[in-house]
Amino acid sequence: MNEQKGALSGLRILDLTRVLAGPFCTMMLADMGAEVIKIEEPGKGDDSRHFAPFQNGESAYYMNLNRNKKGVTLNLKGKGRELFLSLAETADVVVENYRPGTMDKLGLGYETLKAINPRLVYAAISGFGNTGPYRLRAGYDIIGQAMGGLMSTTGWPDGEPTRTGTAIGDVLGGLSVAIGVLAALRHRDLTGEGQMVDVSLVDSVVASLEIITQIYLTEGRIPGRIGNRYESVYPYDSFRANDGSIVIGAGNDKLWHLVCSVIGRPDLAADERFDSNPKRVKRHAEVKPLVEAWTQLHSIDEIVEKMLAAGVPAAPINTIDRLVKDPHIAVAREMFVNVTHPKAGETKLTGSHIKMSATPSAIRTPSPELGQHNGEVYGEILGLSEKEILALRQEGVL
Amino acid sequence: MNEQKGALSGLRILDLTRVLAGPFCTMMLADMGAEVIKIEEPGKGDDSRHFAPFQNGESAYYMNLNRNKKGVTLNLKGKGRELFLSLAETADVVVENYRPGTMDKLGLGYETLKAINPRLVYAAISGFGNTGPYRLRAGYDIIGQAMGGLMSTTGWPDGEPTRTGTAIGDVLGGLSVAIGVLAALRHRDLTGEGQMVDVSLVDSVVASLEIITQIYLTEGRIPGRIGNRYESVYPYDSFRANDGSIVIGAGNDKLWHLVCSVIGRPDLAADERFDSNPKRVKRHAEVKPLVEAWTQLHSIDEIVEKMLAAGVPAAPINTIDRLVKDPHIAVAREMFVNVTHPKAGETKLTGSHIKMSATPSAIRTPSPELGQHNGEVYGEILGLSEKEILALRQEGVL
Repeated sequence: MNEQKGALSGLRILDLTRVLAGPFCTMMLADMGAEVIKIEEPGKGDDSRHFAPFQNGESAYYMNLNRNKKGVTLNLKGKGRELFLSLAETADVVVENYRPGTMDKLGLGYETLKAINPRLVYAAISGFGNTGPYRLRAGYDIIGQAMGGLMSTTGWPDGEPTRTGTAIGDVLGGLSVAIGVLAALRHRDLTGEGQMVDVSLVDSVVASLEIITQIYLTEGRIPGRIGNRYESVYPYDSFRANDGSIVIGAGNDKLWHLVCSVIGRPDLAADERFDSNPKRVKRHAEVKPLVEAWTQLHSIDEIVEKMLAAGVPAAPINTIDRLVKDPHIAVAREMFVNVTHPKAGETKLTGSHIKMSATPSAIRTPSPELGQHNGEVYGEILGLSEKEILALRQEGVL
Repeated sequence: MNEQKGALSGLRILDLTRVLAGPFCTMMLADMGAEVIKIEEPGKGDDSRHFAPFQNGESAYYMNLNRNKKGVTLNLKGKGRELFLSLAETADVVVENYRPGTMDKLGLGYETLKAINPRLVYAAISGFGNTGPYRLRAGYDIIGQAMGGLMSTTGWPDGEPTRTGTAIGDVLGGLSVAIGVLAALRHRDLTGEGQMVDVSLVDSVVASLEIITQIYLTEGRIPGRIGNRYESVYPYDSFRANDGSIVIGAGNDKLWHLVCSVIGRPDLAADERFDSNPKRVKRHAEVKPLVEAWTQLHSIDEIVEKMLAAGVPAAPINTIDRLVKDPHIAVAREMFVNVTHPKAGETKLTGSHIKMSATPSAIRTPSPELGQHNGEVYGEILGLSEKEILALRQEGVL
């Protein structure tokens, strides 16, 4: 059935990436039906195979990011280099996240691959990109978040710059390089011309700042840390409940009047200190305790229910245990999916968040064991015999 | 010249989106060469035209997110609906970020558009998606960050859940829907079949959590807020300088020894309390002040220079004023680009972060004035005369 094949069915992607940014990109492409062949170091594999948490000895980190992929082993030096070049002749895309220059040193740089396959899309993800004075610096997620300016604007007044609680630099990089790959494929399909896509974690974080950077470029004011509120409207902030916190987004006078009514203080709606949004923004430190005087007496669920019933945008600040049980997120939107892994057993992975009506993304297979698809890939694609594959394994090539 | 046209040259996108998530998606597609026709409400336009900061009365918020787009006005009710349907017949993609159901009420839902153009890719971005019990709730960025679990893991121990300092829910949604559109276009180009792409801010935030969610699903432990450090390695954290903060990422014993040497405490390398990574993670509260005893005496630039020279990954926590002057980010990677706007004058916008060798993304034109391309779009695409366009404007249709 066409519906089962995925939007990217028929594409072959050679995946040299490790850990998070690159694997997140190729995971999305695999979820959408591309054939992703993950190439790992013989005997060792992706570092993230050894990252906690584990289930029956299998890394959930690895299992989540590498579902739907085929797994082969290959030492890229010596004989392995020739095998990689043969695979690259048959591929649509190569994705790698080595430090710039590493692929060139291996004799596998873009110019080499382009010469044997001009239609190839070559995508590189690195900390700082393939050009510029910092290109050889190591680029971990925390370095992308720090240098890209994001940490300086996350956190509380008089508090420290704060890292976003997920590896958001890696995630932004992975999403961005997927866009570049798909755009380059469209150009390739129409013209026959492949190209190199170069995405850095730092650039991706910078692109995410949007209006934050414009505040400085336009007004000369350095945006600081203002906790959970926004600069332009109030109450649009977090508030304490008796069992956690919630957020309320009341951006205009009408919504403010509804908030006053829900919290049992209709008198505040007419209070001249708070009767316009600019006044509420200016006096946000007075407004917050007035709202919290009511919210802190009630539970997250009660507050959200009452606010939503009155027409006020509100939401729980979900902790992860609440998130994975949420009837909308977990059930209706299928954001957590049961997958059976041959070693780990029954696992629950994060579902695809890109919902498509005709070619739905799906988790079709669990992550591969190290070298699981050596026979299929080297046998069927390159025509090697079982004997040849065994010999290559004994030589340490596979 | 082919190089100047962009990878998505030849694609026509009708853009009904407002404010951030949707416009960020279509901005990237326009940067890559697609013809994006932004459709705005006559006389008023996108709300973000009225958002600070301003330069000569023009919103930098709007200018940044809407460069490279054509701007037309259209009232989608009555006669305007027919005009929209005529445009949709000629389009490859429609993108909208109304609350689910709004396009149906306008008689412009996906089924209607599909009937007149089965090849169309219809992309919707909303707070909660087009299915599920919360689909009609308002979905602002702060609500996506809160419900998606991200705020619960961002911030400091014993501190409050913290919003990421940029509208990361909107940004993640915008990036994700761009991936869905491009994947759907590939399927359409090969099969002739269009489809609907449905992306929510909440789902996009959930997808970004990756390993955070796996910690709970696998171990049953609820991930909390641990500031800037990581759970698995140390020192991998922020440290105070005498003029701000820096981050160091020293993930193994060798790097720890180098850190000890840079901070003038070679004795610590042999100290049994800290001689393995698990010990340093356990005693992170003791390690941090030992490192800070040295870093707080030095400037950001001195510390980063000395650490990098020794081979230790390190970076400044850039404030926005440092970011826009950085020789790598601003100059070599061209992440800030001068653009001349007819009213605002010389402005500096955020450059494209997806670097492509054969079809570079570029800022070709500034953001449109309200209705600037009415003549071109309604005249050249739909064949209306100047007189007809004028009449439609007088009737309030345009």
